[in-house]
Amino acid sequence: MGTTQLETVPEPKYWHLKTVLSEALDTEFTVGEILPNERDLAARFGVARATLRQALEQLELEGRLQRRRGVGTTVAPPRVGVAVGTEQHVWPGAAGDDWQPVDCALEVPPAAVAAALETGAEQNVHLVRRSRTTHGQPVAAELLYIAQSAVPDLSAIDAPAGAARARAVLRELQRLELEGQESAVELGSARADDARQLDRLPGAPVLVVTTRYIAEGRTAAVSVATYRADTCRLTFGDSGGVEIHQGPERRAS
Amino acid sequence: MGTTQLETVPEPKYWHLKTVLSEALDTEFTVGEILPNERDLAARFGVARATLRQALEQLELEGRLQRRRGVGTTVAPPRVGVAVGTEQHVWPGAAGDDWQPVDCALEVPPAAVAAALETGAEQNVHLVRRSRTTHGQPVAAELLYIAQSAVPDLSAIDAPAGAARARAVLRELQRLELEGQESAVELGSARADDARQLDRLPGAPVLVVTTRYIAEGRTAAVSVATYRADTCRLTFGDSGGVEIHQGPERRAS
Repeated sequence: MGTTQLETVPEPKYWHLKTVLSEALDTEFTVGEILPNERDLAARFGVARATLRQALEQLELEGRLQRRRGVGTTVAPPRVGVAVGTEQHVWPGAAGDDWQPVDCALEVPPAAVAAALETGAEQNVHLVRRSRTTHGQPVAAELLYIAQSAVPDLSAIDAPAGAARARAVLRELQRLELEGQESAVELGSARADDARQLDRLPGAPVLVVTTRYIAEGRTAAVSVATYRADTCRLTFGDSGGVEIHQGPERRAS
Repeated sequence: MGTTQLETVPEPKYWHLKTVLSEALDTEFTVGEILPNERDLAARFGVARATLRQALEQLELEGRLQRRRGVGTTVAPPRVGVAVGTEQHVWPGAAGDDWQPVDCALEVPPAAVAAALETGAEQNVHLVRRSRTTHGQPVAAELLYIAQSAVPDLSAIDAPAGAARARAVLRELQRLELEGQESAVELGSARADDARQLDRLPGAPVLVVTTRYIAEGRTAAVSVATYRADTCRLTFGDSGGVEIHQGPERRAS
């Protein structure tokens, strides 16, 4: 604890407080317990409210605390592992996929998606919205863009809209042979509509997973999935079951 | 733009400002350009300094802006794709691995790592520290814990310490047959020592990738790698080359 003379970057005050608070969470509190209010906490640790708030924000970033309106700040349960990559490539909507279709529409995609799908300017694509829940909690919201040329035999009549339409589009897509898929994950902040779906405030930190699905030598679909960064660990690899959970504090000895 | 009456969660003021600023970044600024100071920006957009600062924080979270001490706030280049998962499983330090060993020591690992490695309480393991750079910039810092039982024939004499010792440990590890590996990625905040290595302030948002390497039916090594969340997109899948970059703003049409 405490900074040493050798450190080139001075350790901010809230950082030290965060370490102390983190230890208190481990020893004095249980999961789900509501923390004392900010005034009492600041008094207990002898710090300014602003310093306390910064430390609480850090702990929220690390998934140790949850702040909920009307409830207060509670000790968070360990993050839930959610598989985002598997050894096998599968189309969205294939068996075992735990995403739920919400609706489907024709929309002009953002420029980056249009470039990947090689659709022309202002050309519509199928936009399937899906959501993913784990243990009854919403964990992710997805925008899945599918080139119209990838599902040419789709009839507009059978399922004109909504979740049924989304399922019809995905069924058609699965008729193509999936040649490969590539994903990337990065930090983002929740857009207003994703935030509502995820029960978060706009701007909350999220993990954005972008996946490109390749068929017939080109990109047939692009998925942009937004995961709650506070409650999720994204797993990929053999089993999706990495059991080691450790925030940065807990991996320091 | 602007909120509608139908929204159940009101859109915060800084969020609207963020959208406006994001558009200004696209149209009026180039990568690397220094933004006007906060006072001027707040005046231009007719908002309080606190609101401006929140919006700038959001844009930093999304990788659109970089704040550097002594320089100011600059328009960030697109995030760099860094491969973290491949189709093939490989040991750390195998050919093609772009991590650089920094040093190696015997240390008691954190409890979660000790449990995974099935080492006894207070039992030392090899701790190899490595760093990863892309285009000359530090992008990640790794703590790689290796059970002593996984590298039993290691001689202490040849390379007693430092990077040479780290390479010797990794060479020994590669003699085992790698049976599988599992990874998970989650949001974290940079510990003081990682922050220094990554040229960030302690507490900066980072993406923490935990990987378990399995040999002879048990976990032989655990890697905890901390990536800069501001500059990195982590790629996994076929080629590690997903070319679609889009912050949440840019995927909104």
